[in-house]
Amino acid sequence: MGQTPKSMTIYNNTPLMTVFRSPQQDYEHLCEHVQIWDVSCERQVEIAGGDAVKLVELITPRDVSKCEIGQCMYIPLVDENGGIVNDPILLRLNKEHFWLSIADSNVLLWVKGIAYGMGYRTSIQDPDVNPLAIQGPRSDDLMVDLLGENIRKLPFFRFFRKTLAGTSFYIARSGWSGQGGFEIYLEECSKGLDLWDCIWDAGQKYNIRAGCPNSIDRIERGLLSYGNDMTLAENPFVCGLDRFISRDKKAECMSSGALSKAYEQGTTHKLVYLLIPGKSLTPPRETWRVSDESGTTRGYLTSMAYSMRYGGNIAFATVEAQFSTPGQALFVEIDSDEQATATVLSEFRD
Amino acid sequence: MGQTPKSMTIYNNTPLMTVFRSPQQDYEHLCEHVQIWDVSCERQVEIAGGDAVKLVELITPRDVSKCEIGQCMYIPLVDENGGIVNDPILLRLNKEHFWLSIADSNVLLWVKGIAYGMGYRTSIQDPDVNPLAIQGPRSDDLMVDLLGENIRKLPFFRFFRKTLAGTSFYIARSGWSGQGGFEIYLEECSKGLDLWDCIWDAGQKYNIRAGCPNSIDRIERGLLSYGNDMTLAENPFVCGLDRFISRDKKAECMSSGALSKAYEQGTTHKLVYLLIPGKSLTPPRETWRVSDESGTTRGYLTSMAYSMRYGGNIAFATVEAQFSTPGQALFVEIDSDEQATATVLSEFRD
Repeated sequence: MGQTPKSMTIYNNTPLMTVFRSPQQDYEHLCEHVQIWDVSCERQVEIAGGDAVKLVELITPRDVSKCEIGQCMYIPLVDENGGIVNDPILLRLNKEHFWLSIADSNVLLWVKGIAYGMGYRTSIQDPDVNPLAIQGPRSDDLMVDLLGENIRKLPFFRFFRKTLAGTSFYIARSGWSGQGGFEIYLEECSKGLDLWDCIWDAGQKYNIRAGCPNSIDRIERGLLSYGNDMTLAENPFVCGLDRFISRDKKAECMSSGALSKAYEQGTTHKLVYLLIPGKSLTPPRETWRVSDESGTTRGYLTSMAYSMRYGGNIAFATVEAQFSTPGQALFVEIDSDEQATATVLSEFRD
Repeated sequence: MGQTPKSMTIYNNTPLMTVFRSPQQDYEHLCEHVQIWDVSCERQVEIAGGDAVKLVELITPRDVSKCEIGQCMYIPLVDENGGIVNDPILLRLNKEHFWLSIADSNVLLWVKGIAYGMGYRTSIQDPDVNPLAIQGPRSDDLMVDLLGENIRKLPFFRFFRKTLAGTSFYIARSGWSGQGGFEIYLEECSKGLDLWDCIWDAGQKYNIRAGCPNSIDRIERGLLSYGNDMTLAENPFVCGLDRFISRDKKAECMSSGALSKAYEQGTTHKLVYLLIPGKSLTPPRETWRVSDESGTTRGYLTSMAYSMRYGGNIAFATVEAQFSTPGQALFVEIDSDEQATATVLSEFRD
């Protein structure tokens, strides 16, 4: 049971719903009630074996030694040139057993290639784990009904093992929204419909709906989308991911040389939060150019949504660093003969 | 100018049209006239530098030393376990300069990972080259009008450099159809529309249409689709790619150990051509199970199309090796209460 989506995309070769009623209606419901999301497109890359720790440390500038068993950690993956390969959530299942719950790029082949070249003893695979997200302010109430009171005590970015609808899974307090909730890592694909129905039925009293990552919510909350707001062409400093670079990390890391150099040189571009006041804009089909007062191109929009809370269009843009200061006025080229004024904000969170 | 497609898919994160009028109408036109295809989804992975040859030799079981400058070569990419990673066309632009024109999987990250791990001196990138295919029996006539008589002499899987519509490009005699034609590797993306219009206008006298890879044509001609008919889970022997494994190859190759072992052991499964006579079948939403007379599952369909030429549905299926002999009768599970009889053919070509 559920609802029919209005639009979808393909993410890691897997369908991902993008709108059910309208972005605004989906957003309002997400902020008030609880939603169930099929996010099986968040594929897992399983890394296990004697060199698993070495491999995970090599591919991210974060210090993975600080990640405990049962903990999730957001780890940008960065190549030897400083380019962002992906920004997965790391789940440490055991000392030498990890899942990378990935964004939209083929980390499996990336990690397999590195492990082969380095001669590491690791087992690397896609274990066909299909995540389901429960998001929204009533997520706790719903999951307490299903899994018992102790789910309330699960801290953010921690997971434990639970059983429901005849299947056992990891459940983490996490999810790609700003409204709180959980992610369930379903291992037995054949139990998916039973699990969905079980949560669906219990969710009726909380006005549950089928949902999906919501563009308004995620931009308001500053959640970046790999492939849009950051790509292999950007380093973590451009995208404001400085805090995920452990400068005192001891393990060998393939990006450390490039990132030290990038840090010293400073970035030429920065990802900024833009507010474009006024009516809701329809994204043009081409790239959205951002220019200064003189009309000179200074960067490009990477994501945009209309936010009633901000009374305007909120967006991410990558612009030249000297135009990235909060308060900076910029112009977004809507069309060859139309431009909208925009202001750089320090962040959207309030 | 062109026509509007009826359906599309996403291939290497890029839109790819799949049907314009109907598969049958598109097929008939392709077999008789000439079509222009936007296949920019065929991304290039550029490998250059002192260790470029070593790297290309490492990732494919084919003997790349036999590939001359100006030559294309179909090279399955195979990992250290014998699994197929992709099946690109290799273009040798220069002694130490290659493009892999890839099918649908992220070869860029895999190759980058291997090169990093091996410590190779190579430059690896996606050069943003957008291929355009001219396919169908009138392709030669059309391209002669545009590029001169010597294009007729271009042998199969060879390329040279030409200029048209203000842009210079490699043009190869190749393409993902059985009807002959060319692929143009456009490097200046901004010239794409001019190039399209130029070919479009000249093609009017040959009844040119916008088109795309056609399911009927490609299955009839035995062209496999990566991600459907072969995946990382299959080795080249399963998919009948034996002839692309150079057993006397001298260069180091990461799959040679696994492939020697697989060769000695023999494969448990084989990809077969299936004819399912009768009316055109609508593919079920779930996996298409293939069973023997007793109802025991023996494999799965991987692709299917209705062919008027064969008076039935033609398909690829991966089945247990002992059920792969031409003439073998099998059953395709259309639905829980409906099955169709099928026969293994030696091939579809006649």
